[in-house]
Amino acid sequence: MEKTNIAIVGMGTVGTGVARLLLDHGDRTSRHAGRTLWLKKAVVRDLQKPRDVELPDGVVTDSIADVLNDPEITVVAQLIGGLEPARTIMLDLLEAGKDIVTANKALLAQHGPELFNRARELGRSIAFEASVAGGIPIIANISQCLSANQIVSLEGILNGTSNFIVTQMDERGASYDDVVRQAQKLGYAEADPAMDVDGSDAAQKLAILAHLAFGATVDWNDIPRVGIDGLAADDLTYARKLGYRIKLLGVAKLADDGLELSVGPTLVKIGTPLAEVRDAFNAIRVIGDAVGPVFYHGLGAGQMPTASAVVADLIDTAVGRTRLTFQTLEYFSIDQPPRVKLRDADTLVGRYYFRLPVSNHPGTLASIATVLAKHGISIASVIQHETSDEADGSNDPQIDPVTLVVMTHEATAGAARKATLEIESLATVTGPVVRLQVKD
Amino acid sequence: MEKTNIAIVGMGTVGTGVARLLLDHGDRTSRHAGRTLWLKKAVVRDLQKPRDVELPDGVVTDSIADVLNDPEITVVAQLIGGLEPARTIMLDLLEAGKDIVTANKALLAQHGPELFNRARELGRSIAFEASVAGGIPIIANISQCLSANQIVSLEGILNGTSNFIVTQMDERGASYDDVVRQAQKLGYAEADPAMDVDGSDAAQKLAILAHLAFGATVDWNDIPRVGIDGLAADDLTYARKLGYRIKLLGVAKLADDGLELSVGPTLVKIGTPLAEVRDAFNAIRVIGDAVGPVFYHGLGAGQMPTASAVVADLIDTAVGRTRLTFQTLEYFSIDQPPRVKLRDADTLVGRYYFRLPVSNHPGTLASIATVLAKHGISIASVIQHETSDEADGSNDPQIDPVTLVVMTHEATAGAARKATLEIESLATVTGPVVRLQVKD
Repeated sequence: MEKTNIAIVGMGTVGTGVARLLLDHGDRTSRHAGRTLWLKKAVVRDLQKPRDVELPDGVVTDSIADVLNDPEITVVAQLIGGLEPARTIMLDLLEAGKDIVTANKALLAQHGPELFNRARELGRSIAFEASVAGGIPIIANISQCLSANQIVSLEGILNGTSNFIVTQMDERGASYDDVVRQAQKLGYAEADPAMDVDGSDAAQKLAILAHLAFGATVDWNDIPRVGIDGLAADDLTYARKLGYRIKLLGVAKLADDGLELSVGPTLVKIGTPLAEVRDAFNAIRVIGDAVGPVFYHGLGAGQMPTASAVVADLIDTAVGRTRLTFQTLEYFSIDQPPRVKLRDADTLVGRYYFRLPVSNHPGTLASIATVLAKHGISIASVIQHETSDEADGSNDPQIDPVTLVVMTHEATAGAARKATLEIESLATVTGPVVRLQVKD
Repeated sequence: MEKTNIAIVGMGTVGTGVARLLLDHGDRTSRHAGRTLWLKKAVVRDLQKPRDVELPDGVVTDSIADVLNDPEITVVAQLIGGLEPARTIMLDLLEAGKDIVTANKALLAQHGPELFNRARELGRSIAFEASVAGGIPIIANISQCLSANQIVSLEGILNGTSNFIVTQMDERGASYDDVVRQAQKLGYAEADPAMDVDGSDAAQKLAILAHLAFGATVDWNDIPRVGIDGLAADDLTYARKLGYRIKLLGVAKLADDGLELSVGPTLVKIGTPLAEVRDAFNAIRVIGDAVGPVFYHGLGAGQMPTASAVVADLIDTAVGRTRLTFQTLEYFSIDQPPRVKLRDADTLVGRYYFRLPVSNHPGTLASIATVLAKHGISIASVIQHETSDEADGSNDPQIDPVTLVVMTHEATAGAARKATLEIESLATVTGPVVRLQVKD
């Protein structure tokens, strides 16, 4: 049987999972690839570090040169995270004639055009299924399976850490800080979870998907994004009362005047598929103009789901499918102008949820409603929440802060933004306003 | 730009949809294929019949020879249903050197090995994404995207007609016959819906998926199957009372002693994703040993969802990916022994729902419970349903037929089958027993 020599660069969690699949399930991979995928080298930083997988003699090395200088190794799983040295290593591997499989979404979101153009110049390929929503093969589904369609919209829960946190806050009524600590203990959140909880990770994934699905060329930093780090347990409770759950949604939607892109905590109607996605799962709903709605649900991260995506890419690359796709689709090409422009975020239309900390003066609601009306925003429903102290009658209702929750009818994002600023300057509003999108 | 000449054989609903995508969206297909997909011929039975798509001059023909004898045509969408002449046409097209894309699941379920082996001998390929669950790209997902996994189980709602019927019976309380007539009017059911409602269509699709996912070589006729044609509106009502919906599920599950395969109406817990699949949608839940559970949901049939799958296959074939996959995976190979054997259906373990029409004698429940106990089946819960006449006190309770619903704990299918026969022979049981599987 023919043999393709593989190297893994970076033996962290995912690299270890990939090595396990290649070593323990060689029969399976060779049946699906029609050839043996032979793990020849695994590059690690520290040779002494104990590992969860037993590598055959001679496989492990701490020198990338052992891969670069071995012409027998033709396919490399590049599994080092971050931007550098990952970018330089990737360029070196391409120069050395290797086809690459990677899970590094930050690198692609930042340096995609440079890396993909260099790969094309050198006649090499880069496969990246594992970079978005690990267990959901969304890259192949958009690039190949739905290729007869103009994709019209794509909405997804793309960050498993955030979804775990909001699910636990919602179901256990726990505070944000408590759940983050729990997520860190369970390995669902990094020591510094900032990129996950502030929406950056989801924005990077959305930038990649928006390029594949719509030909948008977008810096992920330009995608309007809000994280879950500003959510209070109260927001989840109010949302539930109103018939919604809060999910960190990435949205890409095509309209006549361009592409709408956003990432933010969103009220999603209870009972709809996206609302029922729990814990570390991801889900993506794609609408194509021919196929209609297609919904995908699977684990968003984790060792083996991500390794599954990496090994599927290794097989596709060994078989030759990746190169055909890569040559044909010209992803992240510097020469190709973007096929869509981004819509001005302020013009996007949606419904909004506002949570406002207010002092309990007469006329507070009137003053807020007046600001909203001035910006053309009409109110759909209001929840006014008495504090428990007030309910006791033990406090002065004139000075007690209470919470006001307002759901609006459709309004532009610009109007909602301006109204928020103006409302926050009202004397009766005692703190920052939480403003969330509502999806119906 | 390079050009691939395409022919469509069979201009029914799906063929018309495929022609539309090729003619109206050439920019899109050529971008995704890196070449023009040129519709050169469309073979129809009746040249005079009015069509829903305007074909350019010279495209339409009633002679298959115009395709067979044109060496410029390299890829053919073969969209004639049924077994003959579809099989002969397919063999002729392969002999003439054409790569084939088809949506004909009955043909593949029946003659897959013959057709695939001939294609391999001739160095040609057959793509068949549209043959199972139209809008869900399950063939590519199993063959490529999840190729790093041993698939452990696969459960699906594979027949949109049946699902439409049970959804409408459940939600509107309508009778089976009424809903079938409505489905026919809406175009969801054929004039003769037998293959859909008796489970045959789902069994054919399951046979194909079981081959791809498990290497099982199975005649679809050998898959134990029950249709929805025996369901009463009452069954849906009782199921709902017990916390379930009834869905026609196809199940393939791997165990140490072989593969379990079955098609039948199944009680699925309300709130789980499969239970919430409504109307003409299909859904498939796959569990892989690395990736974990992946859930797919989309339209199961219909003109444009199926055409979307056909055109994706045309693109894959024009690009060259199909041939690589086809050569590598050796689907339906006569030379390859099946990788799994089927489990004896009688040994499968599950919970059961029994609906029994009984006469209201004292001791009826005792006699039924005794038979169940004899076969090692223990009862989890019972609903005894008084007839409304009886509740009026106007009838003799000694002779009134009533309905008894019994949910069991786990039992083997063999025990359930034998117990059913024995129960039906009891003097107090007045008609056939409805026995359904329960999925927890």
